[in-house]
Amino acid sequence: MGKGWAIALHGGAGDIPINLPQNKKEPRESALLHCLQLGISALKNGRSPLDVVELVVMELENHPLFNAGRGSVLTTEGTVEMDASIMDGKTKKCGAVSGVKTVKNAVSLARLVMEKTPHVYLGFEGAEAFAREQVVETANQSYFITPANVERLQQAKEANRVQLDYTRPIAKEVKVETHIANGDSQIGTVGCVAVDADGNLAAATSTGGVVNKRIGRIGDSPIIGSGTYANTYCAVSCTGVGEDIIRGTIARDVAALMEYKGLSLKEATSYVIKNGAPEGTFGLVAVSATGEIAMPFNTTGMFRACASQDGYSEVAIH
Amino acid sequence: MGKGWAIALHGGAGDIPINLPQNKKEPRESALLHCLQLGISALKNGRSPLDVVELVVMELENHPLFNAGRGSVLTTEGTVEMDASIMDGKTKKCGAVSGVKTVKNAVSLARLVMEKTPHVYLGFEGAEAFAREQVVETANQSYFITPANVERLQQAKEANRVQLDYTRPIAKEVKVETHIANGDSQIGTVGCVAVDADGNLAAATSTGGVVNKRIGRIGDSPIIGSGTYANTYCAVSCTGVGEDIIRGTIARDVAALMEYKGLSLKEATSYVIKNGAPEGTFGLVAVSATGEIAMPFNTTGMFRACASQDGYSEVAIH
Repeated sequence: MGKGWAIALHGGAGDIPINLPQNKKEPRESALLHCLQLGISALKNGRSPLDVVELVVMELENHPLFNAGRGSVLTTEGTVEMDASIMDGKTKKCGAVSGVKTVKNAVSLARLVMEKTPHVYLGFEGAEAFAREQVVETANQSYFITPANVERLQQAKEANRVQLDYTRPIAKEVKVETHIANGDSQIGTVGCVAVDADGNLAAATSTGGVVNKRIGRIGDSPIIGSGTYANTYCAVSCTGVGEDIIRGTIARDVAALMEYKGLSLKEATSYVIKNGAPEGTFGLVAVSATGEIAMPFNTTGMFRACASQDGYSEVAIH
Repeated sequence: MGKGWAIALHGGAGDIPINLPQNKKEPRESALLHCLQLGISALKNGRSPLDVVELVVMELENHPLFNAGRGSVLTTEGTVEMDASIMDGKTKKCGAVSGVKTVKNAVSLARLVMEKTPHVYLGFEGAEAFAREQVVETANQSYFITPANVERLQQAKEANRVQLDYTRPIAKEVKVETHIANGDSQIGTVGCVAVDADGNLAAATSTGGVVNKRIGRIGDSPIIGSGTYANTYCAVSCTGVGEDIIRGTIARDVAALMEYKGLSLKEATSYVIKNGAPEGTFGLVAVSATGEIAMPFNTTGMFRACASQDGYSEVAIH
């Protein structure tokens, strides 16, 4: 079935200004390239797509410029609550965690849920307790919280307060959009999809959520079928406004359009980008069993990178 | 589009013995009939399908014989952690909660998340804090915990302990199946789907999870696209082994087969029951925009009831 390996990864979609300053653009492009190369090497060395997406997402989580792991944006209480999920296409085995606070690599904890428990999804205190049992690497909040995110929370709270004086609660969303416009706010959910030369597929996604989020808010990233999905047709990882991605069951819909309507990966992802959720809300990366790659978005930009066995490679923002 | 109202509800699917004793059968059948009549009256009185599914699921949550709200099964620590979700087909608006411990009607809290926040999904402490803000009705653990569930937890722990002496952790699942066989264990997740004469659809699901579950374990019930889904084609609520339902994105798949493959509700639900998850793992109730009803399951039974405007009505277990 396979026609060669392929990999695609993202560092978040949103309203990224065309004139993003070089000092914000360059380090992200470098990081995307670094993570891409890591994934390519792993695929070339015969690592499974499941290993590869975990490895790449871990590296993105460890990078403080993306909104996952270290660099996660802050809740309204100034804390981090991270979500992640991972899925293997052939077996449909999957794992997910929500609300983890001390785990360096939420994506690895999600994989442990998949492999070491009869469950798929553990949340909050239960996920933390599981992390202790599995003796995964943890850190205190100072590891995760960057000065930039402390400032973003401050700005979000100020914007929120002002707007709440004049508008209905929906202002919270307006505020978020305004805030996104500086090009390095909560944009930055990370994800990776990969396929090997035998057509084995896997997907993983990890996030800190949205700036100034309510404690306990869960977006699309840990939801199998919304933020992450893989089967024998394709693997998909989404990024954007989590609530819209959940309503659109975006990741599963890409695969369902291939499985039930016979669309190609390009056709399925184009359809979903147009019809799955409102303009300006999301993007995704996807690979098919035959090594096709799609990285569409309906926002102004998406931090992304991809490569395939035939030598094609790309790192892009807009 | 609509051809008359229709409603279907369930009180859980699983390995329900054919010779279920009358004293376990009768009270459940009575409760299903009572909840069905409540839903029928509400539909006849012009209440929206969204109101109707919330109302019916609340009533099922309030009934101690079903595993949701009062009567929720217990975690390994002897506590309750309830999950629920609700979705409106026309707008695709939805709400979900996980890990609530004091809220009498988790389904109503899910609806408040949908209507009073910009979010879709709140979990654990954050969901509890939101419940306090919204001043929903709460109760202490003694309200939720029934003597039958204390006994079930005890049995599950004993079975678990014995089996852990001889087998690998997977024995936990074996134990659960053995325990299900008494016909009134963790079977009992509840759900309701409804459509009005104009073809407006809604779905809701609520659960206490599985007996002896790990703290923080989340199943399919709060997951939009897995346990619950509604769009303009159909509304679906699932019940069974949550992990298998998540891997199969069952509720969305029924709708996707109608939307993308042009199948009827009967065809779509039959396909999913056969191919969506392993034999013996789940069931679902569904209604289409044109008032068709489907209540298939691949377990030995499912507590269920339905009615439609043309006068058809049914309450059944096997």
